[in-house]
Amino acid sequence: MGAGKTYRMGRIFGEDGRALILPVDHGLTLGRIEGLEDPVARVDGLLDLPCDALLMAPGLTRLTADRFARRAAPARLLTLDTFFRLPGETAAGAGLAGSVEQAARLGVDCLKLFMAWNVPSRERAGTLSRIAEVVRRAEEFDLPVMLEPIAVGEQRTPEAIAVEGDGARAALEVGADVIKVAYPGPELMAAWAAELRLPLVILGGPRTGDAEGVITLAEEAVEHGARGIVIGRNVWQRPPDVTRALMQRLHAIVHP
Amino acid sequence: MGAGKTYRMGRIFGEDGRALILPVDHGLTLGRIEGLEDPVARVDGLLDLPCDALLMAPGLTRLTADRFARRAAPARLLTLDTFFRLPGETAAGAGLAGSVEQAARLGVDCLKLFMAWNVPSRERAGTLSRIAEVVRRAEEFDLPVMLEPIAVGEQRTPEAIAVEGDGARAALEVGADVIKVAYPGPELMAAWAAELRLPLVILGGPRTGDAEGVITLAEEAVEHGARGIVIGRNVWQRPPDVTRALMQRLHAIVHP
Amino acid sequence: MGAGKTYRMGRIFGEDGRALILPVDHGLTLGRIEGLEDPVARVDGLLDLPCDALLMAPGLTRLTADRFARRAAPARLLTLDTFFRLPGETAAGAGLAGSVEQAARLGVDCLKLFMAWNVPSRERAGTLSRIAEVVRRAEEFDLPVMLEPIAVGEQRTPEAIAVEGDGARAALEVGADVIKVAYPGPELMAAWAAELRLPLVILGGPRTGDAEGVITLAEEAVEHGARGIVIGRNVWQRPPDVTRALMQRLHAIVHP
Amino acid sequence: MGAGKTYRMGRIFGEDGRALILPVDHGLTLGRIEGLEDPVARVDGLLDLPCDALLMAPGLTRLTADRFARRAAPARLLTLDTFFRLPGETAAGAGLAGSVEQAARLGVDCLKLFMAWNVPSRERAGTLSRIAEVVRRAEEFDLPVMLEPIAVGEQRTPEAIAVEGDGARAALEVGADVIKVAYPGPELMAAWAAELRLPLVILGGPRTGDAEGVITLAEEAVEHGARGIVIGRNVWQRPPDVTRALMQRLHAIVHP
Amino acid sequence: MGAGKTYRMGRIFGEDGRALILPVDHGLTLGRIEGLEDPVARVDGLLDLPCDALLMAPGLTRLTADRFARRAAPARLLTLDTFFRLPGETAAGAGLAGSVEQAARLGVDCLKLFMAWNVPSRERAGTLSRIAEVVRRAEEFDLPVMLEPIAVGEQRTPEAIAVEGDGARAALEVGADVIKVAYPGPELMAAWAAELRLPLVILGGPRTGDAEGVITLAEEAVEHGARGIVIGRNVWQRPPDVTRALMQRLHAIVHP
Repeated sequence: MGAGKTYRMGRIFGEDGRALILPVDHGLTLGRIEGLEDPVARVDGLLDLPCDALLMAPGLTRLTADRFARRAAPARLLTLDTFFRLPGETAAGAGLAGSVEQAARLGVDCLKLFMAWNVPSRERAGTLSRIAEVVRRAEEFDLPVMLEPIAVGEQRTPEAIAVEGDGARAALEVGADVIKVAYPGPELMAAWAAELRLPLVILGGPRTGDAEGVITLAEEAVEHGARGIVIGRNVWQRPPDVTRALMQRLHAIVHP
Repeated sequence: MGAGKTYRMGRIFGEDGRALILPVDHGLTLGRIEGLEDPVARVDGLLDLPCDALLMAPGLTRLTADRFARRAAPARLLTLDTFFRLPGETAAGAGLAGSVEQAARLGVDCLKLFMAWNVPSRERAGTLSRIAEVVRRAEEFDLPVMLEPIAVGEQRTPEAIAVEGDGARAALEVGADVIKVAYPGPELMAAWAAELRLPLVILGGPRTGDAEGVITLAEEAVEHGARGIVIGRNVWQRPPDVTRALMQRLHAIVHP
Repeated sequence: MGAGKTYRMGRIFGEDGRALILPVDHGLTLGRIEGLEDPVARVDGLLDLPCDALLMAPGLTRLTADRFARRAAPARLLTLDTFFRLPGETAAGAGLAGSVEQAARLGVDCLKLFMAWNVPSRERAGTLSRIAEVVRRAEEFDLPVMLEPIAVGEQRTPEAIAVEGDGARAALEVGADVIKVAYPGPELMAAWAAELRLPLVILGGPRTGDAEGVITLAEEAVEHGARGIVIGRNVWQRPPDVTRALMQRLHAIVHP
Repeated sequence: MGAGKTYRMGRIFGEDGRALILPVDHGLTLGRIEGLEDPVARVDGLLDLPCDALLMAPGLTRLTADRFARRAAPARLLTLDTFFRLPGETAAGAGLAGSVEQAARLGVDCLKLFMAWNVPSRERAGTLSRIAEVVRRAEEFDLPVMLEPIAVGEQRTPEAIAVEGDGARAALEVGADVIKVAYPGPELMAAWAAELRLPLVILGGPRTGDAEGVITLAEEAVEHGARGIVIGRNVWQRPPDVTRALMQRLHAIVHP
Repeated sequence: MGAGKTYRMGRIFGEDGRALILPVDHGLTLGRIEGLEDPVARVDGLLDLPCDALLMAPGLTRLTADRFARRAAPARLLTLDTFFRLPGETAAGAGLAGSVEQAARLGVDCLKLFMAWNVPSRERAGTLSRIAEVVRRAEEFDLPVMLEPIAVGEQRTPEAIAVEGDGARAALEVGADVIKVAYPGPELMAAWAAELRLPLVILGGPRTGDAEGVITLAEEAVEHGARGIVIGRNVWQRPPDVTRALMQRLHAIVHP
């Protein structure tokens, strides 16, 4: 690993190699969703909670640059692409919404790209080509890349999870430095963590169930090898005191 | 914000951070419309009215360069793209009709791009990728970018306005410096203005109703947080004395 | 206008700002048409007739370079693109068939591009983007650009002429220095000439009617503001003595 | 014509301006066809026959470079593109399979590109754009370009021949230095040769009829203005002694 | 052949011009397949077996770089593209998943690209254009290119094998340095090896039959001209002792 990646990965994953990452990048693709209507205020409200890094799209990264302009601030990861698919559409829309140069100028520590993997073959190949080009450019700046292979909109069946496992492998091969996955259950979590030999971080997805479910998910995932948690809506789409308590408990799980 | 953007945004929004902007860029997409048959004469007729900036496409900007070649002239914003959709068409046509280099050569103060947002997912993603590339190039010249998310051709239902709210959020995230929206009503106007933390300016659209409606729209919008007004056809598709009176009243609303 | 454009426009439009331009560029799109089977011979036959400029595609421009290698020779305009649409086709084919660099090397005085304007929205947007890119490159060489908006294959109804009027406005906005139109009748000719403030030149199209019709067309067009005539087939698809007489009379009309 | 083209055209067409060219480039598009199963052996077998140049694709050009690494060796032309159309397909496949830079590195004397001309308008325009880009690049190296307009798979009706005549004219206009055509009969051969003012060379196509037919074709074509013969399968898909005899007779026809 | 290719080909094919190559690149396209769930462990387990080179995708190449960071380590070939086709899909997905620059940085000795050849004409032409561009870039680094023409998913009929023979010829012409084929039987193996004059290496494909079948295949192929064996799943999707025994026997066949 080059010096630039070593430095940036260290800023995200710290001395214990673990990271609690807060995603607030939803506006680019989902628009003005509940709990993130005012994204700057949301960031401000989260900044005094224990957290290693935030995941943001370019605009919010720019608007909040001053909040992070100090040495102990959390790291920042930059969402660089979109994925749109309306109900009933056969063809999804995906593409870059930012550039590697922009990321380098903004000073972020990592790029994040999406890999919808339950899609037609042509879209799969297009996604990998687009990512490969970003990886090539990111290498010039020694910027780490986080990839997120997902079976979009599917039930969590073993088949859907296997599709994501295949996507995680493709993510490794195309050049991921970190892979963001939906928690696949304890056995596969342990297996993937061992096999991929890259930091795996767990996503939260839409708010579901109660707050305890989030804790259980995080505990199980970390216990079985996850190196980090990237949970947003399931944290900040709850009352402020629940959000605060959740962050503190998640931090304790990630950094025991 | 870089020195170039600070300078240019100041030229548009002035000391009070507000702007009355006159759009006369319709020819690129709509052709030879009523009231703008002779665009240079129209610009000449508008120049002695109180106005902070004009929005023009590249050709008219070139033809009228000498009118603005003095220090107290209004600023100029450059429309850089097209959006065509004929009745009955399922696929719209959109794309750049100018370049960032052209804008830099012309000396304009801002770029303006369109975001049709009630479109298939593939067109959405394509629009964001096209804009992201312009944003990347504009950063090299430190040129501000105004984005305009619209639910094209729809009734002003809450659903359509929500689509535009989602588009405004995506506009922020892809790198807008200014966002041009259709007035969403007082509550959402106030909310968006607070949340997006960028100057929001209000468009007028096709001429509708009487001149008083325009004044009411502007008053309401500014009262609830709009930082500017970009009204063209509803101003200059009226008799000259009405146009003059409207401009004077709008100027008083924007700069009270 | 830059020094390069000033020089080249002067070579085409002369001291009175008028031009009689002979098009012999048909081979690129129409193939081996009547009267232009031997394009070099045709050029040779035309060169002793009064004429300000020839419009040619790249190949013929190259083959006849020596004919123009003297100071008093006519100027040359370069056709840079194609438009194909076979009977029954729903999708037309259009694209560049030459480059701005090629034009600069050949030493021509102007580029000419086609704007089929009665086409689906996606083709319209694609045409403008393609032209915008040529305009951007042409600016680097200070080469003038002539655009030709046409309602291809339509009857000359008021609706078709209005489509071309819209196209002429879009041509101005995307960066035309000269606009080539089908004669729209006296009122619109005068209106467009006044409004667009660029030299408008009139095309001839397929040979129709008798030679007197061409003269009438030219007289009417020039009388109402046309700055030039670009008539080919209606001139050289006639017997040599008629061609000669037509050219002399057209020259007298353009340069009275 | 630049010094580079003058030099290379002279290497192909010699002092009498005529050329007997042997095509052995079929593998790129047709695969392992009869008589060319072992292309290097085929080239070796042909090299002691009288011949001015060989037409090869990049791979064979590379494999046989040493055979041509002497001053009196035949010239080499490089096939740079493909055209595939399977029975029943509505859309053909065409594209570059090599680059101008590759040609320059290989040291060949000419590029050869295909123009399927009885195709939908969109493919026609795409073909011309692709060729125009190659022409632009080839100009940087002063490399001649041979274009080959064909009504693929059609009977030799007057209509099909007229399509190829239109294609030949488009070939001239887009920048051909040499045009390769199917023999159109004596009248059109003479007409095209006079009109296009570029060297026309005649292709052979699939083996048909007896060897005498090839001789008759060549004699007729040369008599009526062809500047060269590019016949492969009709020469080397015959017994070795017939091939040898044919080459000698063709050479005598081309260089009487 | 340039000095760089000479050096790298020598690292792969050794002094006797033969190579036993182990493919472990399946994750990029096939995901987490049996026997390659933990690709790094698999590589570690294979490294003490006799083997001239490994074929890997970019991610695994990066993860295992330290294993090869010694002078006597096997060479490495880099898989650079993908091919996806789900059951029932009419359009396949193919594209680059890495770059030539990446390969140069990683220090691999060869690039490997796929040529699905039983596909619609448009995909064929697209594949060749994509490969031609890689070949052009690879020439700048003097990196060898291995191409793999396959009739994907077809029975091994004479027709399918002939399609692959056509693909092998196209592979040669577009610039292959090595061609990877499915064993076509003894006669064609001998013929292709003689005709193509490039090293042909034989692939194994999905595990089929017993281990003895692999030995028979390798013996026959090498006996009839194959210069190498690229068998993965048929080797490492078996019990460890069988894998070890197979590798030793294959090595003895390739380097007798």
